[in-house]
Amino acid sequence: MKWPEFQKLIESRNFGGKISKDDLPTPALVVDLDIFEANLNKMASHLNAAGKGFRPHAKTHKCVEIAEACIRVGAVGTCTAKISEAEVFAASGLSGLLVTTPLVGSWRIERAVALALDKPDTIYCADHPANVDMLSEAAKAAGIELNVAIDLLVGGRTGIEPGKEALQLAQKIDTAANLRFAGIQAFAGPCAHTHGFEARKGASEAAMSLAVDTRILIERSGIGCRWLSGSSTGAYNIDSAIDGVTELQPGSFLFMDIDYAGIGGINNSVEFDDFGFSLSVITTVFSKPSKSVAIVDAGFKAFSTDRPFPPRLKTGDSKYNWAGDEHGRLDLNATDRSVELGDRLEFLAPHCDPTVNLYDSIYGVRGQQLEAVWKIAARGMTT
Amino acid sequence: MKWPEFQKLIESRNFGGKISKDDLPTPALVVDLDIFEANLNKMASHLNAAGKGFRPHAKTHKCVEIAEACIRVGAVGTCTAKISEAEVFAASGLSGLLVTTPLVGSWRIERAVALALDKPDTIYCADHPANVDMLSEAAKAAGIELNVAIDLLVGGRTGIEPGKEALQLAQKIDTAANLRFAGIQAFAGPCAHTHGFEARKGASEAAMSLAVDTRILIERSGIGCRWLSGSSTGAYNIDSAIDGVTELQPGSFLFMDIDYAGIGGINNSVEFDDFGFSLSVITTVFSKPSKSVAIVDAGFKAFSTDRPFPPRLKTGDSKYNWAGDEHGRLDLNATDRSVELGDRLEFLAPHCDPTVNLYDSIYGVRGQQLEAVWKIAARGMTT
Repeated sequence: MKWPEFQKLIESRNFGGKISKDDLPTPALVVDLDIFEANLNKMASHLNAAGKGFRPHAKTHKCVEIAEACIRVGAVGTCTAKISEAEVFAASGLSGLLVTTPLVGSWRIERAVALALDKPDTIYCADHPANVDMLSEAAKAAGIELNVAIDLLVGGRTGIEPGKEALQLAQKIDTAANLRFAGIQAFAGPCAHTHGFEARKGASEAAMSLAVDTRILIERSGIGCRWLSGSSTGAYNIDSAIDGVTELQPGSFLFMDIDYAGIGGINNSVEFDDFGFSLSVITTVFSKPSKSVAIVDAGFKAFSTDRPFPPRLKTGDSKYNWAGDEHGRLDLNATDRSVELGDRLEFLAPHCDPTVNLYDSIYGVRGQQLEAVWKIAARGMTT
Repeated sequence: MKWPEFQKLIESRNFGGKISKDDLPTPALVVDLDIFEANLNKMASHLNAAGKGFRPHAKTHKCVEIAEACIRVGAVGTCTAKISEAEVFAASGLSGLLVTTPLVGSWRIERAVALALDKPDTIYCADHPANVDMLSEAAKAAGIELNVAIDLLVGGRTGIEPGKEALQLAQKIDTAANLRFAGIQAFAGPCAHTHGFEARKGASEAAMSLAVDTRILIERSGIGCRWLSGSSTGAYNIDSAIDGVTELQPGSFLFMDIDYAGIGGINNSVEFDDFGFSLSVITTVFSKPSKSVAIVDAGFKAFSTDRPFPPRLKTGDSKYNWAGDEHGRLDLNATDRSVELGDRLEFLAPHCDPTVNLYDSIYGVRGQQLEAVWKIAARGMTT
C-alpha cells in the first residue's frame, strides 16, 4: 500500500479490512485484539465471580477506548496515577475515576476540585494531615464535597502507617469540612512482582491484612469504611480471595510484558501465563552491517528501558541488544533464523506501561488485519 | 498563582515576567536559557573557528524553536534520525535537513520522496545496494533527484564497510538514475562516550580516519565527495581538528546530562564541563511515608532509564532511587538536607534525548522567570 493511501485510510477511520499489519510504519505499537479481549474478559469474570469491584488502572494503557472497553465488561470506573490523566478521561465522558496518588501542590488540588465539579464521584487520596487540610479548604472555597480516601502504606511507596495513624487520618477526613471519607487505597507495589506464586501470596496477604485490619479499626471507631481498593495484575487471584478487600485495580493484565511473565503463576511456576501477550512492537531491519548483525529501528525511544533486560522476539530466538535511542542490534550468531534487510520483526516489551507511554497510538489488529487505532490520549500526562 | 490563570497565560503565550519556575506543574522539563544559549554559542563559535559546518542533531531536542535557534547562530541545517522527525521540521519551514539513518521500507522511501519534493536540499543515507536501487526507482517515478550519502560503518551501528565496499556504493549512487551522490555520513557512536579525553581522542581519530580515507578513495575514483558529516558532543573538539571532516552534528551539548558529564574533558579529567547543564526536571515531594523517605512525583515516565544510574539532584546530595512509573524515592538518611512535603526539587537527567522524548513541552526559564514554552513537536516521531 502506498503511504498517502495509508494515511488517508487512517485519517478517514474507514480502514476495515483494507490495512494489514505489514502496512504499518515501524516501530509500530500493536495490540492483538483477540488476546486483549480474552485478557479483559478473564479478569472481569474472575473478579465478578469473587464478588469484587473492578477498577482497572489506566496508567498502563492511557487510552479512552480501553477504559470504555473495561466499563463495558463491568468495571466500576477507571484508576489514574495523575490528575492530568484523570482530566483526559473525564473530558471523554468517563466517571468513576480514582486518582491513586496523593495530590500535593496547590495547582494539583485546584485541578482536582475543578474535575470533581464535573465528575462528583471521583475519589482522591491523601496520606498526610496537612494535605487533608488543603483539600478541605479548597473544597470549601469551591462549595463542593470531595471524596477522599486514605492512602495506606502497605509496602508500597506512599501512604500513612496502618493502624492508629491511619485511623486518625480517617477521622480527620471524616470531620473535615467539605470532605467525604471514601475508604482506603492500599497499593502493595513490590508484592505484585514477587517471584513464585506462594511467596507472592504470602507477601500480598501480609500487606493487605494491614489494610483489612485498618478498615476494621476505622469501622469500629464508628466511621463507615465500605471501600478498600488495591492490588495488581500479579496479585489479582490472591487479593480477590481476601475478605475485606472490596475492589481491585490491576492494569498490566490487559497487555502483559516480559517482566510480569517472569513472576510465575499458580499453575506454572516458571511463567505467569494467566494472561496472554497482547502487546508487541513491530520493527524493521534497516541495516545489516555484517552477516552476524542486523539493526532494527527501535531502541530506547521505542521500548521501556527500566528493567534489567531488553525486548525479546515474540517468536524465535534472535538476541536483541540495546544500540541507542533509535537502534536495536540483533546478534544473528545466536540464531538459526535468516534475517534480511527489510524484514519486519515483532518484539515483546520488557515493561508495558512505560512502553505504551512512548507512542501516540496503539494499532489494534485482529489476526493480520488492522481493526482499530486507539489514541494514547493520556500519554505524556505526567503532572 | 491559581491554575486557571496559569493555563490562560500559557495558552495566550503572553506570560512574560508573570510566571515563575515555582508555578510550573511537576514534573516539569525545564531548560535554563542562559546556560542553553552559552552552550549553543560556544559550539557554534568553536566550529566556525575550526572552519567546519554545523548541523546539530535534533533527535536530542525535537523542537522547532531550538532548530531555528541553531540556524540563527550559523548552523547549515538540522539532522534527524527519523523521516517522521524530518517531516515535522520541514512542515515548520526548515530546510537543510539530513536524515542520518538509512530509509528501509517502501513507506519510508515514499515519505522521503514526498519530503524532498518540498525540501530538495534534504540529504538521505543508504548503506546497502538494494536500498540504493529502491531510492533510485522511487525518485525516478516521482521525477525528482534525491541527495543520497553513503552511511559509513565507523564503529557505529549502521553503515557500509569503509574502503572498497563504500567506494562501490558511492559509484552505484553516483550512476543511479535520479540520485545525486551527497558524500559521507559517518557516526562513530561508541567513541562519543569513551571515558577520558585522550582515549576518546584516539578512538575518534581512528574511526574518523576510516571516513577520511574513504572520502579520498572516492575522490580519487573521480567522484566528487565534498561532504563528510559526523561526530557528537563528546568528540566535538576532536573531530573539529580532523582534516577531511567537513561538518559536525552534535546534539547533547545543548542540554548536557549526567552520562556525558562523566566522560571527562580536555581540561578536567573527571567531569566533561565544556558545556553546562541547561536541562533539568522539577519535581514535587508528594509523600513522606517516614522521616527518612521522601517520594517525588517523577519516575520511569519522567526520566530516561537507559543508563545504569538514576537522576541526581541539581544541587545537593539527596539520593534518588527509582520507585516506579510515577515515583522516585529519596533516601533522607543520605543527606543533611531537610526535605518536606510539597518541596520542589530539581533533578538532572541521566540521558537527555530519551528524557526530552517523554514530555510535550520544554519550559524555557531565565533565572526564576518563565520566558518560553517550546513544543516538543517531533516527540514520539519514532517512524
